[in-house]
Amino acid sequence: MFFQIKKGNGDPAIYKQIYRQLKDLILDESLSNQKLPSKRKLAQDLRVSVNSVAHAYEQLLVEGYIYSVERKGYIVEDIMRYIKREGEDDPFPDELKENGKKESFSPEVTFSHISIDAEHFPFKKWRRYQQNVIENHRNQLALLPHPQGPYELRESIATMIALTRGVRCRPEQIVIGSGTQPLIHKLMSLQSEFTRIAVENPGYQRFYHLLKDMGFPVAPVDLDNHGISIDAIRESNPKWVFVTPSHQFPTGTIMPINRRIELLNWAAESPDRYIVEDDYDSEFKYETDHIPSLQSLDRNQQVIYTGTFSKTLLPSLRISYIVLPPDLLKLYRNAFNEWIDGPSSLNLWTLKYFIDRGEYGRHMKRMNAHYKTKRATLISELHRFFSDKITIHDIPAGLHFLMEIDTTLSYKDIEERAIEKRVELYTIRRFFLQDFNPDPNRKKKLIIGFANMKENEVRESVKRLASIFS
Amino acid sequence: MFFQIKKGNGDPAIYKQIYRQLKDLILDESLSNQKLPSKRKLAQDLRVSVNSVAHAYEQLLVEGYIYSVERKGYIVEDIMRYIKREGEDDPFPDELKENGKKESFSPEVTFSHISIDAEHFPFKKWRRYQQNVIENHRNQLALLPHPQGPYELRESIATMIALTRGVRCRPEQIVIGSGTQPLIHKLMSLQSEFTRIAVENPGYQRFYHLLKDMGFPVAPVDLDNHGISIDAIRESNPKWVFVTPSHQFPTGTIMPINRRIELLNWAAESPDRYIVEDDYDSEFKYETDHIPSLQSLDRNQQVIYTGTFSKTLLPSLRISYIVLPPDLLKLYRNAFNEWIDGPSSLNLWTLKYFIDRGEYGRHMKRMNAHYKTKRATLISELHRFFSDKITIHDIPAGLHFLMEIDTTLSYKDIEERAIEKRVELYTIRRFFLQDFNPDPNRKKKLIIGFANMKENEVRESVKRLASIFS
Repeated sequence: MFFQIKKGNGDPAIYKQIYRQLKDLILDESLSNQKLPSKRKLAQDLRVSVNSVAHAYEQLLVEGYIYSVERKGYIVEDIMRYIKREGEDDPFPDELKENGKKESFSPEVTFSHISIDAEHFPFKKWRRYQQNVIENHRNQLALLPHPQGPYELRESIATMIALTRGVRCRPEQIVIGSGTQPLIHKLMSLQSEFTRIAVENPGYQRFYHLLKDMGFPVAPVDLDNHGISIDAIRESNPKWVFVTPSHQFPTGTIMPINRRIELLNWAAESPDRYIVEDDYDSEFKYETDHIPSLQSLDRNQQVIYTGTFSKTLLPSLRISYIVLPPDLLKLYRNAFNEWIDGPSSLNLWTLKYFIDRGEYGRHMKRMNAHYKTKRATLISELHRFFSDKITIHDIPAGLHFLMEIDTTLSYKDIEERAIEKRVELYTIRRFFLQDFNPDPNRKKKLIIGFANMKENEVRESVKRLASIFS
Repeated sequence: MFFQIKKGNGDPAIYKQIYRQLKDLILDESLSNQKLPSKRKLAQDLRVSVNSVAHAYEQLLVEGYIYSVERKGYIVEDIMRYIKREGEDDPFPDELKENGKKESFSPEVTFSHISIDAEHFPFKKWRRYQQNVIENHRNQLALLPHPQGPYELRESIATMIALTRGVRCRPEQIVIGSGTQPLIHKLMSLQSEFTRIAVENPGYQRFYHLLKDMGFPVAPVDLDNHGISIDAIRESNPKWVFVTPSHQFPTGTIMPINRRIELLNWAAESPDRYIVEDDYDSEFKYETDHIPSLQSLDRNQQVIYTGTFSKTLLPSLRISYIVLPPDLLKLYRNAFNEWIDGPSSLNLWTLKYFIDRGEYGRHMKRMNAHYKTKRATLISELHRFFSDKITIHDIPAGLHFLMEIDTTLSYKDIEERAIEKRVELYTIRRFFLQDFNPDPNRKKKLIIGFANMKENEVRESVKRLASIFS
């Protein structure tokens, strides 16, 4: 054997050198079926300790390169050759490469409706409650979480949404997940693929694509001034309807009581009709009180309520929930009782403390005040810069509003110029789910989100927005 | 109007009392189409401030109970009647009720292979790195996370698994999720429903049921002493094979190199064959070094590697990942680029610091030493209590081992007596995926997990285990 054992300072451990060189020889088939020298013999030849050889042999044995025969010693396996397919040496495809850490578009000014203001998140309090959880619930952290999330947190959420949203449910009916998307996906995977679904148009494109991708026949249904049109629902004849009654996304419309009853009555006509109420940012109301949820008005257990902590705490926390009527809960449990894919229990228990100790309520109060001021400043700056060129749909709710602007630019022009000026800006075009035929007039609709805008940057942001249209 | 306004200390705000009483009257249809008194008039009548009435009217207006007509005032809507379906007053079904916080079975002694020892988790260090993240990456926390998880963490994982598991991949190929189950679910949802799949039998029942529930033809394939049998694979002729080569679940077998090459060569025969390598607890090795992953031996990009931090950190953290070959990565990105359902970014960034600063490596070293000692104590106590009645499959890897016990009890007896004695114990029966025909001899196979057993409770646990068989 022509082994090279290096004993320098930076060299690998001696047993590793023996292991690697023997492995290479074995894979070359040069040693197949041969007996290896005894540990003592090889140690003498290589002038190393018997321990080093023993360690190397042990590793080769456990990986199956050699086997031992009693009173004979270690025999080398007859190792098979690898089959190498043609054309598999292709380098990693360029199209799949990510440009390191850099985003392709890094805006300097944002009117996004998605991100929120993390400067005001009470991290210190969050960490303090987390410490309580580590001290008081360490045992829970060693276990798999409950498939619906800890019962204790579901209790806190049930109480909270009863008070703020009028939602009537038991903790059993709540399922906590790492987003409304995966929760809706799991729920809908239990429905027949022929289930017809109606969604709001314009509307939340993520749900639309999710449902389309799952193979359902999904019909985008037009809105009128009061939200989704019941006539249009009847025309497309769905079993399920997805709505955002508290603050229609993206137009901001608050569905009035009559339309709500009309919608609930449409569902009541047949027990297999369901309404999914996506209550994505209902916690933010600026002039009036909270508006009771659609679920709170339902007499027939046909509304599925979904809520999220993405807007009220942090989108990066990934904590959302869904409230299921008993019949759907039964279906869900049968299918997903063995599924564990929710958020971290450490975060969930921390959230429970955060709610129970009143910190969530205080945070919501502070954020409502903060967003109210920022929103008012933004609206007044917009009027100052654009004067009569714009109309703002000033519905005092949520973290975005709709603004119409009189311009000769097309939607495509606006979007391209926004990127050029490094402004993150979404137009209504993005939320039309199919066949976007903009009115032929010059009014263009923009979604103006303000949550992630710093207070002292409002004027600068509006100035930059104006530069798109100048 | 017969309004009752209470001005006591504990009474609701006056505007709320006006709002509620008006709302009730409107819902009774007693006011339909009528004009409401002017704010000033009603305020005088009720002896309250105009502001209170204004506030109440505003809330009714935004919810759609009334509308305003210029120079006329507020008119009450003609509110529809709710339709109430028959038989919808059923109370919440008993079968769906959870018994409050109490688990139905609360063991006093556990041999579970699932839970781990949270006493040794370095929460203090974790919290320190979390603080670094809050200080240095607050902006990231305000945004939606990358659908595959932060690129920076994927870099750290790629480097780590290259060093410890020989996995060859780019950060682009890693997808982070809140469990291997949802990751496998998403990946497999892109395959034709006719894709034949082979899984190990006995094996990981969660994947088996997941794949069955997705509608795939899944064949449980028998094992021999070297792990999954290639002959049996050829017989069931699958496109995908799911294996646990580092430490077969639950038997503990380490797949030897020849079987590995045979399996890879089987895949190499056709480019649409894939092997999923579930490396669920490979980080724990007690006598030998780490065994290189199957992925590290693959020449043809046909192995999908999955790893998890559930065993090495905490199962409640819910952080797992999957490494996709380029062709599957492309499919995955096309389907799921709009999906946001991974773990919290706060945890993911903290994990990055934890790995990069060497804390993960130190923790693994400590836990390996800890588990090694506990495992040795457990094995010696088992021999002491059961002497020649047991055979332990002493493969020095993972967080559980297989133990055969000579007993007249049936598997059903053992499981029932374990519950009686409040011992959490799994037998091999649980992991046979179909047609469990135990050998007619008296040897029964138990899965002995030791991760969540306290060091000072080993003897007590074994004593309790023995009581099942006495």
